[in-house]
Amino acid sequence: MFEIHSRDRGSRARSGTLRLAHGDVRTPAFVPLATRGAVKTLEPRDVAALGYEMILGNTFHLLLAPGPELVDAYGGLHEFMRWPAPIITDSGGFQVFSLGHGGVADEIKGRRRSGQTSGSILGIGEEGVRFRSYLDGGVRFLSPETSMAVQAALRSDIALVLDECTPFHVTREYTARSTERTHRWLERCLTWHARHGPAGQRVYGIVQGGIEQDLRAASAEAVAASGCPGVAIGGTLGRDKPQMHEVVGWATAALERVCPDRPRHLLGIGEVDDLIAGVELGIDTFDCAVPTRLARHGVALVPDPAGRWRVDLAKAQWRGSREPVLDGCPCPCCTAGFTRGYLHYAHRARELTGARLLTLHNLAFLARLMSDLRAAIDAGRLGEVAAALRSGAAPGVAIAAS
Amino acid sequence: MFEIHSRDRGSRARSGTLRLAHGDVRTPAFVPLATRGAVKTLEPRDVAALGYEMILGNTFHLLLAPGPELVDAYGGLHEFMRWPAPIITDSGGFQVFSLGHGGVADEIKGRRRSGQTSGSILGIGEEGVRFRSYLDGGVRFLSPETSMAVQAALRSDIALVLDECTPFHVTREYTARSTERTHRWLERCLTWHARHGPAGQRVYGIVQGGIEQDLRAASAEAVAASGCPGVAIGGTLGRDKPQMHEVVGWATAALERVCPDRPRHLLGIGEVDDLIAGVELGIDTFDCAVPTRLARHGVALVPDPAGRWRVDLAKAQWRGSREPVLDGCPCPCCTAGFTRGYLHYAHRARELTGARLLTLHNLAFLARLMSDLRAAIDAGRLGEVAAALRSGAAPGVAIAAS
Repeated sequence: MFEIHSRDRGSRARSGTLRLAHGDVRTPAFVPLATRGAVKTLEPRDVAALGYEMILGNTFHLLLAPGPELVDAYGGLHEFMRWPAPIITDSGGFQVFSLGHGGVADEIKGRRRSGQTSGSILGIGEEGVRFRSYLDGGVRFLSPETSMAVQAALRSDIALVLDECTPFHVTREYTARSTERTHRWLERCLTWHARHGPAGQRVYGIVQGGIEQDLRAASAEAVAASGCPGVAIGGTLGRDKPQMHEVVGWATAALERVCPDRPRHLLGIGEVDDLIAGVELGIDTFDCAVPTRLARHGVALVPDPAGRWRVDLAKAQWRGSREPVLDGCPCPCCTAGFTRGYLHYAHRARELTGARLLTLHNLAFLARLMSDLRAAIDAGRLGEVAAALRSGAAPGVAIAAS
Repeated sequence: MFEIHSRDRGSRARSGTLRLAHGDVRTPAFVPLATRGAVKTLEPRDVAALGYEMILGNTFHLLLAPGPELVDAYGGLHEFMRWPAPIITDSGGFQVFSLGHGGVADEIKGRRRSGQTSGSILGIGEEGVRFRSYLDGGVRFLSPETSMAVQAALRSDIALVLDECTPFHVTREYTARSTERTHRWLERCLTWHARHGPAGQRVYGIVQGGIEQDLRAASAEAVAASGCPGVAIGGTLGRDKPQMHEVVGWATAALERVCPDRPRHLLGIGEVDDLIAGVELGIDTFDCAVPTRLARHGVALVPDPAGRWRVDLAKAQWRGSREPVLDGCPCPCCTAGFTRGYLHYAHRARELTGARLLTLHNLAFLARLMSDLRAAIDAGRLGEVAAALRSGAAPGVAIAAS
C-alpha cells in the first residue's frame, strides 16, 4: 500500500506513493479539508487542477448531515461529492471530544473556537461517547464500532480509528489512562473493520500519549503491534511549536524503530513551517483547516523569512494596493492579475469570489511547497531546499534555485 | 457601434453585434450581474467560459464601496475586477430611489426586499437625490452629473443616464412629471458626458413612462431625439407579466419608429419566459439578478412547459435524489455528475460550493438559451425555436431539434 522512493540522509524525511483504492497519492502531501463533503468555495475539478490527489472528509459532520445511510446510498462519499480520487476520513473523535472537553480543539490547535459548539457531550465511557447533535439536538452515540461503520458507509480509502483526544491541561495519569483506552478502541475498530469494512479501505491507528515521551513511544508500539497498515499522530502536541515538533519527533522516532515502512499522517497540522518541519520529522501526509480557513478570513500564504508565512489582506493597509498577492505565483488568482487591493475590497464586501480566489492561492501555495519537498527528497537536497524556503524563497523557486 | 445582422419576420426580434471599447457582444444577450465588482461565487474566467461577453456593474454599490476614486486609480472597473471584456454600468437611480419610495424595487420587480435598506433617502429634487449610505451612514448625493462622473471613473463600455424610477402605485400625473424630469436629467447626463466622459464609453438613455402607452411613446421619442447611441427601458413595467410584456412592447414599438437601429437594453428583467418574450419584442440585451440569486437560494433553472422554468432544490423532496439538475446539460455542474440530492444537501449545509455549482448551471442555461435565440433569428426560425423552448425543450436541444 505504501511504496517509499527515497529517504533523506539528514532527517527522517522520505518520499513515496500511497497506493489506494481510488488512486495513488505522492507523498509527502498536504490533504485539503472537505469537511462536510465540499472543499469550501471550490469544485472537485479545482482541487484536482491544483495538483491534489487526496482530500479529507469529516466523519463527525457527515454523520450528523447528510448521514451515512444517505451517502452510502450514493455508493459512498466519492460518488456523492463527485471526487473520484482518494479520500481519508477522520474518526469523529476530535470533534466529539471538543464538545466535551470544553475547548480541547482550541487547546490542541491554539486557535479560536469555531462557533459550532452548541452541541454538547453527555457522557464518555469505555463503550463510547454520547453527545447531543449541534444540528437537531438529538442524542447520538459514537463508539469505535459506530465510527468505523460510518466510515465504511462513506467508503473512504483511509479510515482512522476512534481515539480519545486528550486535552493539554490534564495530569500524566489521565493521559496514560486515556491512551490505554485509545489502544483498546484501536483493537475494537480493527476487529469491526476485519468483519465489516469495505474491501480496499485501509485503517490507520492513532498514536496518542500527550506530551509524555514514553507514552508516545508506547503508543507507537501499540499501534504498530496492532498490525494496521498506517499510523496517524493525534492529540495534544504541546503548548507551542517547538514542543509540538518535539512531540511529533518522539512519535516518529518510535515509529521509525517499530514500523519504519508504514505511512504516517499528522492530524490537523498544516501551517507552512510545520509542514516543512513535519516532513523532516518523517511525516508523509498532513491535513489542516488553516489554509482554507485563512483564505475565508482574507489571509494569503506568502513566503516569509520571518516565519509567519501569511499576509492579512483584511487589514486597511491593503486598501487600493496594486501589489499582487505573490509576484510570479502561478495560481489562478495571481495569474489572473488580482491585486491585494481587490482582495481586500472583496473580503470587506463579503464577496464570495474573494474567498474563492484566496482559497485557490493558499492551496496552490501548499501544493507547490509539498511538490518542492518531494522533489528535494528525491534529489537528496532536502536540507538546502528547506533552508531556502525558510529563508523566504517561494515554492517552485526554491527547488529551482537551490 | 451596433450592427444588426438579421431581423425576424414574425416579430421585432433582431440579432446583432455591439462593438464596444473592450470587445464585441453578440445580441440578443443576457448580461450577468457583477453588482459589487464580482459575479458572486465566480471568477471572471468562469463567466467568460460560460460564453458571456458582457457583465453589469452597479454604480450605486460601487459608489459607496470601494468608491470611484479607488477604482479609477486602477484604471477602471475592468482592471480592478480583472474582467477584460465589455461592462455596462447602471446609473444608480434604481437603487437610490428604492431607498426612498419604500419598496419601489419590490413593486417594480414583484420580489421580496433584499434586506439592504438600512440607508435612506433624504430628499429628491430637480438637482438630484440626497441619501444616507447603508454602509457608513454618511450623506451622499446622486445627480445626473455625479452618476456620469462615477461611471466615467468606472470606465464602463456602456453608461446609463440617471433616471427617476417611478413606482407603480402613483398617479398618471406623477408619472408624467417624473418622466419629464428623467428627460431633463438625460440632457444633463449627455452634456456632462460630452465634456468629461471617457473616450469610447457609450451612453444609453432610459425610456420611462410607467404603464402609460402615450408616455412610453413620448419618452422613446425624447430619448431618440437626444442622440444617445443606445436605449434602455426602465421603471415600473406593470403589475404582472402580461402587462410587463405589453409595456415593453409599447416602448419597442415606439423605438422601432424613431430609432430602429439603436441597441435596446431591458433593465432588471431576466426570467426565462421574459427573455424569450423580450427578444420577440425587440430587446437586444438584458440584465437581472434572478439567475444568480436563485442559485444562492438553491433554485436551478430547468426547461418547463408549465412556464416556471425552475426547480427548488432546497425543498426536502430532493434529499437523497440521484437525479441530475438537468439531464444532458453541458454545464460544469451537470457534466461533473452532481445530483439534485447533493445540491440540496450543500444548500442546507450552506456550503459555498453548492451556490457556485448552481450559479454556473443557471448562467450556463441562460447563455445557451440566448445562443439558441440568436441562431434562430439568423436562421429565420425564431417562431419555432421559441415555441419549442416554451414547450419544454432544453436550450441547445431546442435549436437542434426544431
